[in-house]
Amino acid sequence: SKDKLQKVAKLLQFKAQLGGDEGKHVFVLKTAKGTRDYNPKQMAIREKVFNIIISCFKRHGAETIDTPVFELKETLTGKYGEDSKLIYDLKDQGGELLSLRYDLTVPFARYLAMNKITNIKRYHIAKVYRRDNPAMTRGRYREFYQCDFDIAGQYDAMIPDAECLKIVYEILNELDLGDFHIKVNDRRILDGMFAVCGVPDEKFRTICSTVDKLDKMAWEDVKKEMVNEKGLSEDVANRIGEYVSMQGGQDLAEQLLQDPKLSQNKQACAGLTDMKLLFSYLELFQVTDKVVFDLSLARGLDYYTGVIYEAILSQTIPAPAEQNGADEAAVSVGSVAGGGRYDGLVGMFDPKGRKVPCVGVSIGIERIFSIMEQKAETSSEKVRTTETQVLVASAQKNLLEERLKLTSELWNTGIKAEVLYKKNPKLLSQLQHCEETGIPLVAILGEQELKDGVVKLRNVASREEVDVPRADLVDEIKKRTL
Amino acid sequence: SKDKLQKVAKLLQFKAQLGGDEGKHVFVLKTAKGTRDYNPKQMAIREKVFNIIISCFKRHGAETIDTPVFELKETLTGKYGEDSKLIYDLKDQGGELLSLRYDLTVPFARYLAMNKITNIKRYHIAKVYRRDNPAMTRGRYREFYQCDFDIAGQYDAMIPDAECLKIVYEILNELDLGDFHIKVNDRRILDGMFAVCGVPDEKFRTICSTVDKLDKMAWEDVKKEMVNEKGLSEDVANRIGEYVSMQGGQDLAEQLLQDPKLSQNKQACAGLTDMKLLFSYLELFQVTDKVVFDLSLARGLDYYTGVIYEAILSQTIPAPAEQNGADEAAVSVGSVAGGGRYDGLVGMFDPKGRKVPCVGVSIGIERIFSIMEQKAETSSEKVRTTETQVLVASAQKNLLEERLKLTSELWNTGIKAEVLYKKNPKLLSQLQHCEETGIPLVAILGEQELKDGVVKLRNVASREEVDVPRADLVDEIKKRTL
Repeated sequence: SKDKLQKVAKLLQFKAQLGGDEGKHVFVLKTAKGTRDYNPKQMAIREKVFNIIISCFKRHGAETIDTPVFELKETLTGKYGEDSKLIYDLKDQGGELLSLRYDLTVPFARYLAMNKITNIKRYHIAKVYRRDNPAMTRGRYREFYQCDFDIAGQYDAMIPDAECLKIVYEILNELDLGDFHIKVNDRRILDGMFAVCGVPDEKFRTICSTVDKLDKMAWEDVKKEMVNEKGLSEDVANRIGEYVSMQGGQDLAEQLLQDPKLSQNKQACAGLTDMKLLFSYLELFQVTDKVVFDLSLARGLDYYTGVIYEAILSQTIPAPAEQNGADEAAVSVGSVAGGGRYDGLVGMFDPKGRKVPCVGVSIGIERIFSIMEQKAETSSEKVRTTETQVLVASAQKNLLEERLKLTSELWNTGIKAEVLYKKNPKLLSQLQHCEETGIPLVAILGEQELKDGVVKLRNVASREEVDVPRADLVDEIKKRTL
Repeated sequence: SKDKLQKVAKLLQFKAQLGGDEGKHVFVLKTAKGTRDYNPKQMAIREKVFNIIISCFKRHGAETIDTPVFELKETLTGKYGEDSKLIYDLKDQGGELLSLRYDLTVPFARYLAMNKITNIKRYHIAKVYRRDNPAMTRGRYREFYQCDFDIAGQYDAMIPDAECLKIVYEILNELDLGDFHIKVNDRRILDGMFAVCGVPDEKFRTICSTVDKLDKMAWEDVKKEMVNEKGLSEDVANRIGEYVSMQGGQDLAEQLLQDPKLSQNKQACAGLTDMKLLFSYLELFQVTDKVVFDLSLARGLDYYTGVIYEAILSQTIPAPAEQNGADEAAVSVGSVAGGGRYDGLVGMFDPKGRKVPCVGVSIGIERIFSIMEQKAETSSEKVRTTETQVLVASAQKNLLEERLKLTSELWNTGIKAEVLYKKNPKLLSQLQHCEETGIPLVAILGEQELKDGVVKLRNVASREEVDVPRADLVDEIKKRTL
């Protein structure tokens, strides 16, 4: 029967897909889990974002370095705590044991120690790798860019720290992502606060992790975790609760320096004094309108030793179409930049433990890409993926040679030009190519134009045409495509 | 005794270095074998080279894409023949089996098939990975850049092929690496030649590999390999020898079309007819002065199906100091670009075997970096690693706030400015920073200047100083650092 034949056909198809011993192997056409290709449109957006960010880094006098995508496994060992399980290892094919880099900060510290560099202001934009559960619709991948700016060196307090915040401010302004604010705090203030609230020393880091969840959880739930899971008493938790609800500016730092308990703690005083100084520099840099001293900011990473900060966009973005679940209908974009001071990390790599103080910031470039892509999709303006200024075309047959010759002349003067790879393309298909790719001008050749020594220059948008003497063509194209 | 104590101390130190269970582990401070960091100076050179190459690709209307650094292992399987053993595999940590990309061509073909793209002109610059024996002093690494430009699509013969050659010509000219020539040949001409010389069909590819060695070996040795290792008769080898010694241009193609034997072979005729056509387009593109039709060019890769080419620099470069061995004292730089037509590769990924004809070129960017680095070292001009236009400085104490304020004003207008992170730096150390990093201008603030509403602008090279009204400072800096 027909039914039976169909069933057999389906089974055979299924077998072929499985790739039997004798059957032709069928490729699985996909990228690795959690990774993606960037198509030309995404690359155009990526280039625009990188240009803004790199310009800012260069404006601040930064150099750039690059490190290999993999490191000796032991270079990464012991740097990421529990997250170490997310590191990609390479197969042991004989030789060294290698792992893909997990961030750019550890390779940076390794680079400084290895080359005995005690002073550098550098940026590094490159991909890092984490075997995380990908949430790709929210812009989280297993291969993703990090974009780091760091200042290493022994300097006077808070000056490089203030510059990092100025940089975040400039970049978020120029990317035009809407309103934002930057939270700042200091690990020494947090530690001092934990001490005066009665948290035992050995619980500082784990309580810090719990405080870090305040941006996603209500205080009541954070408190529950402190009491039920981390074993703090209600009293201690309540005291922490009072502090972490505080937000302000320089005034709050001054007020807390008068706090009867905090003022007795050496760590807290050092942090608060520096916070005051930081705000005075931020005032000079004219960025205090977006900066908030927020005692609930804790940051995840263990290696911070001083000031910490995080930039948050105010807008929420609509969830992409593929994503359902009512509670995720509109997700807060959240943190788009973060960083802080880490004075101990380089010393971990130095055989003699020599310290190189560092402060830096990481721009959350993947989230920014996501936002820019969504903006581009809702915008009426088309994203161009090429920069071609002119298409060399013809309405008549047998003019391929003339088209190629003119195109070559234009390339030689630096004009970005294209020509269709057909002997006799139709004028309509040549114009369509311009419409589709956004080429603004067409240089049209015909027998008459060749005889007259002119080229018909057509504005694609307005459809206006004008004869331009061949000798003036380059200047005319430049003038019209500034 | 003192001696004994010292011995014990040494043993303890040694034990600590070995990293006993309880001892502190000492890191091996190095990058993985065959890889390197790029320092700021190398990055500055890299950026310059990339800018020239990318400008050229954009001038020709190319888009760009990016693909992940690893692919499913099976995507790479069966594409590289014997070289497959050089592929880096990732450790099986549960989930998919992955490998680091070995080149950019296979990921490109996978991308086209996966997205059903039949038409694209794209470039892709990214790192690829090969577990080769590194010869780092000659610019060969296990992690290195590839820089590919490809045109995919069904077009009229030889037009995109000619554009690829035009691109190689433009890039090598602009990089200013001295004289060069581009060899071209066609796989169909090679196969036809093998056929009329009497090479059995099944030996075409292996004899092709032997011919490919003619750029490094004398004909006599190549012939020996053909006869002794590959089993050709003396006669057959001698006939090949006559052909592969031929070089010329369009004229040679015409001459060979009259060759009594070659003209009887369909493949050879198709190749030679296309070669004639190619040269007519190269004439229009004004690049024939550097292009040679060379029957000895074979290229290593299996997947080429038509025209192939390779660009060779004429200069030899002195070997780097670390390298000894008299025979390597001066190495020929050799091939710095190569490519060809591969009409079958995308079809290998398409479930229905649909073909997408492709032609492309790969720029040997690592060799170019090496040459540029050596040029920079012998040149008197210093490579700048930052673009800073001005350092904001002071000769007097207690002017940190004023320096920060002015620096911030300059940043806000787009001026690239630096300020030392010290409360009271010496003028000398501020000037030294400019000398070392090539900053051309210093904006000096003092009590008098602040009172007068001016800034003392100093030219670092000439040491000339002039008072500039604060309102004119930005324009003055821009004028002087165009």
